[in-house]
Amino acid sequence: MTALTPPERVAIVEVAPRDGFQSIRDPLPTADKRRCIEALLDAGVTRLEIGSFVSPKAIAQMADTGDLVAAFADRPGVRLSALVPNLKGAELALAHGIREVVYVVSVSESHNRSNVRRSPDESLEDLGRVIERLRQTDGTRLRLDLGTSFDCPFEGTVAWQSVDRVLGKALELAGDLPLEVALCDTTGRASPYQVADHFTRLRERHVRPGLDWAFHGHDTFGMGVANALFAIHHGATAVDSACAGLGGCPFAPGATGNTATEDLIHALHGGGVETGIDLPTLLEAADRIAALPGGQTASHLRQVPRDRVS
Amino acid sequence: MTALTPPERVAIVEVAPRDGFQSIRDPLPTADKRRCIEALLDAGVTRLEIGSFVSPKAIAQMADTGDLVAAFADRPGVRLSALVPNLKGAELALAHGIREVVYVVSVSESHNRSNVRRSPDESLEDLGRVIERLRQTDGTRLRLDLGTSFDCPFEGTVAWQSVDRVLGKALELAGDLPLEVALCDTTGRASPYQVADHFTRLRERHVRPGLDWAFHGHDTFGMGVANALFAIHHGATAVDSACAGLGGCPFAPGATGNTATEDLIHALHGGGVETGIDLPTLLEAADRIAALPGGQTASHLRQVPRDRVS
Repeated sequence: MTALTPPERVAIVEVAPRDGFQSIRDPLPTADKRRCIEALLDAGVTRLEIGSFVSPKAIAQMADTGDLVAAFADRPGVRLSALVPNLKGAELALAHGIREVVYVVSVSESHNRSNVRRSPDESLEDLGRVIERLRQTDGTRLRLDLGTSFDCPFEGTVAWQSVDRVLGKALELAGDLPLEVALCDTTGRASPYQVADHFTRLRERHVRPGLDWAFHGHDTFGMGVANALFAIHHGATAVDSACAGLGGCPFAPGATGNTATEDLIHALHGGGVETGIDLPTLLEAADRIAALPGGQTASHLRQVPRDRVS
Repeated sequence: MTALTPPERVAIVEVAPRDGFQSIRDPLPTADKRRCIEALLDAGVTRLEIGSFVSPKAIAQMADTGDLVAAFADRPGVRLSALVPNLKGAELALAHGIREVVYVVSVSESHNRSNVRRSPDESLEDLGRVIERLRQTDGTRLRLDLGTSFDCPFEGTVAWQSVDRVLGKALELAGDLPLEVALCDTTGRASPYQVADHFTRLRERHVRPGLDWAFHGHDTFGMGVANALFAIHHGATAVDSACAGLGGCPFAPGATGNTATEDLIHALHGGGVETGIDLPTLLEAADRIAALPGGQTASHLRQVPRDRVS
């Protein structure tokens, strides 16, 4: 038995502006989104998935992503990223000043088709083009989100070998481009030991300079915090979460609720882990986000008497 | 980095009949409780904290504990325990056929006074008398619940040294009596790394044959599953949980919701850990428990489409 010791620091990637807002059907006023993002930055958030450069026909809620990038791109010390489903999205993101492009491929065929209407291999082909485009712009980096890395709403449990296959191809394409790979528990059904197993096996097989690992989870099955900590113990240096637990995946039935940033922060700060985030201020941001019309939130910390939070 | 590997087996101590029912103010009909307990046993539960031998004036809901013990004491393969606040309770428990007595001492002075109206040292004195009484009956064992082992609703964070002081005295009193010590996160505010730290330090300091370790947690802060798994990794061989997440501590403000047994089982079975419990059948018991009038439940698994649970 080895004692589970906390790492010195974990990077929190706040995804409420993308995965969270996206779960709200009726487009929110851009000014409201800006106030929420300001509140997140006030709390010390330094990595922010600010939106998605997708067709407004597909997701109307993301139509103002360019405006949000423009509003926050010059904030010192803030690392913005934006999700893109294809080369066109990547072009738009770069044109708007985004330097970290989040590209999603779902490991499971049926989820990838449901999400972006093509096979994982077709998504990988397009990833090749995105990578070529990123190479032409200095200072760019890629965040690769491997959706359904543990479980698929249509196909059930996903084997690590399936993740390995998609990841291997993506890494071949990426060459030496700075890259953070996120294993995404899209449905929230992964168990902590499965998270540990996938991280262990994949990190053993794929080692190269400039390759970092991250975890993206949902708390649907109550595994949110445990899965994140198990991922961290097995090499993830960044974890996605959404303030107030806003979110869900519109294409993954039953996948309500990103893991709440405040819950994760409570867990990490309890071990003295540095996150740069001030929890009481983050809870003010969570209150603001929870007050947005049409949102579904899932935060434990917000329900605790505020004087019990530190 | 050492891979977090699952243990072969974890004992689940189902506490819904005690910690859960106790949180419901108006006494439930004994027949309803029996049906809930039958449903739990159908699901494969083998350890059950069935009630509490306390004054009915203090907790009216526990007045029928003797009847419940009588109804289930002869079930083969089922290990019943009952909570007692003092020697009188222990006498009653033994007279009703209980062979595992759960004695609670809160580490924090103010919580112990709020809970049983005496200081921890006074509780320990009485524990000495309970232990003497247990020694006179063959086949008895003690479960020592150390309440507020991590956090107190009145005093805040509890240092491991404070737990150590109470535990050390209790172990002196216990001698070689078979004993399971549960570190209890009464408020749910413990962080996983704090759980890891307390288990590591206390298990290093207290080693003797017949001493087992357990964890009792609440999911109030969203740490329920993570805390349980961290405890297991650091030597807990048994974990308390309540089916449907029924419960809370009436004397710990904001402490709503024992960790739901079904959430914990999902986490454990995902790592191939044996628990002896059938999850779909347990969810039927959870539905029955959640339908009880006046109960507050907090289960993630129950909210997931049933065909996603296995």
